[in-house]
Amino acid sequence: MDSVLRASQTSDWRQPAPENTVYLELDRGQVVFELAPDFAPAHIANLRQLIANRYFDGLAIVRSQDNYVVQWGDPSAGADGARPLGKAKESLAAEFTRPGEALDFTAIDATDAYADEVGFSGGFPAARDRAGARAWLTHCYGAVGVGRGNSAQSGSGAELYVVTGHAPRHLDRNVTVIGRVISGMTILSALPRGTGPLGFYESSAEHVRILSMRIGADLPTAERLSIELLRTDTETFRNLVEARRHRAEEWFVDPTGRIDLCNIPLPARPQNPSALPLLRRQ
Amino acid sequence: MDSVLRASQTSDWRQPAPENTVYLELDRGQVVFELAPDFAPAHIANLRQLIANRYFDGLAIVRSQDNYVVQWGDPSAGADGARPLGKAKESLAAEFTRPGEALDFTAIDATDAYADEVGFSGGFPAARDRAGARAWLTHCYGAVGVGRGNSAQSGSGAELYVVTGHAPRHLDRNVTVIGRVISGMTILSALPRGTGPLGFYESSAEHVRILSMRIGADLPTAERLSIELLRTDTETFRNLVEARRHRAEEWFVDPTGRIDLCNIPLPARPQNPSALPLLRRQ
Repeated sequence: MDSVLRASQTSDWRQPAPENTVYLELDRGQVVFELAPDFAPAHIANLRQLIANRYFDGLAIVRSQDNYVVQWGDPSAGADGARPLGKAKESLAAEFTRPGEALDFTAIDATDAYADEVGFSGGFPAARDRAGARAWLTHCYGAVGVGRGNSAQSGSGAELYVVTGHAPRHLDRNVTVIGRVISGMTILSALPRGTGPLGFYESSAEHVRILSMRIGADLPTAERLSIELLRTDTETFRNLVEARRHRAEEWFVDPTGRIDLCNIPLPARPQNPSALPLLRRQ
Repeated sequence: MDSVLRASQTSDWRQPAPENTVYLELDRGQVVFELAPDFAPAHIANLRQLIANRYFDGLAIVRSQDNYVVQWGDPSAGADGARPLGKAKESLAAEFTRPGEALDFTAIDATDAYADEVGFSGGFPAARDRAGARAWLTHCYGAVGVGRGNSAQSGSGAELYVVTGHAPRHLDRNVTVIGRVISGMTILSALPRGTGPLGFYESSAEHVRILSMRIGADLPTAERLSIELLRTDTETFRNLVEARRHRAEEWFVDPTGRIDLCNIPLPARPQNPSALPLLRRQ
């Protein structure tokens, strides 16, 4: 993998669009996620409205369920004292899938437990059904989704979650995924686990306060994350997938020759191209 | 799933054998894992020797790599001041796989990215090749493995790791897996991530000290974990797998009808059968 990245060209990398990055500021650091408007335009538009209202500022991370998700929103949601959503809608039609046609999709050769076909679209891990009629973002580690109630239409974006464990792919096509974390993931994944049902924190003292949530385009340039992401529609990325499928490192004595979508790393590096790539995991 | 567990019989549950449980005591709590001597008898025998020597007492967790593993052992290993292994062997022949014949193996109907066939053996998630000639324990969340160097024979059990992220199944058949965590997993998974290469802690101040490591059979009965684990070779467990494959809960609008081995929960409950089952995750 290192040699694949060393051989990469400038054109193999992209900078996430500032208007499609969200900065979640916590007392313990910054988490940044990239939005995927190709998959969830209505939910993302509503989220932009909530962020413009500064809806999230002062709210909290209220849940950390081991090997599953971290979730944030209004601890008073649904009760007296709940924060109003302002001009944002309270519920939206589901965006669990989208038409598979007219979608940039780079399939990978992988046997998948949950989908007929898997690959990447615009830098996001994704899947399609056999006919290619429907496509959706997959719940890999770091995926950002929109919490909802039992009604498929009950999500608004006011409650968001991030996958912090083994990919809960059974949630695919059952909930709207809006993007994935591209920086600061360890701040979420190492949070203390909640001891209440479903990993909710049992006391407000455990809540992790949100200082602010902002769209990158609304931040001064100097405050934006300096990051480049490896494009997923390139020969370099295909080489990287193959390097992960056939592990050539001396340590491996019996490389599998197989790969799971959610085990494919999505490399990032500082925008200064002389700096070393930041590798996600071994 | 709840209804499956409520309908379970006493005979659906088992108590892990005290001689096959290991208690890792940390200042922040207790982690217990169950050993799988059917898969790694030589490594487990060596580990028993190390534990009998009190080899681990006072050593430390030295690594926490996000979405991958936590690892412990002697921070001075391989250097001056390294703790001697006593009567334990320094290296052992690999036990990456075992013969598939004469093995209790309950296959599940799942498409797997890495193996021809997956299922459970003695309560542990496991896999087989198509011919059934080889079987191995899989690197699902909570798996406990034996760290090794580049030589396949370089593991001794003096360095152990636990999977704390999306299942790194490419490690299957490349390293000896000895068991899985059955209690206290959140103590490991929520540890601060190491900021050095591969998630190693960069300073000894970050190390998490091991107070002691013991075999359950060597503890007074009153100090042993009160736990029962759902057997994996029963009709009840088959029903549970199907309940996870076809999610009937009202929240699911488009149940997948599919399942990934490492997404199958392995329920535990207190030995007092009137107490409620402890469910692993949503």
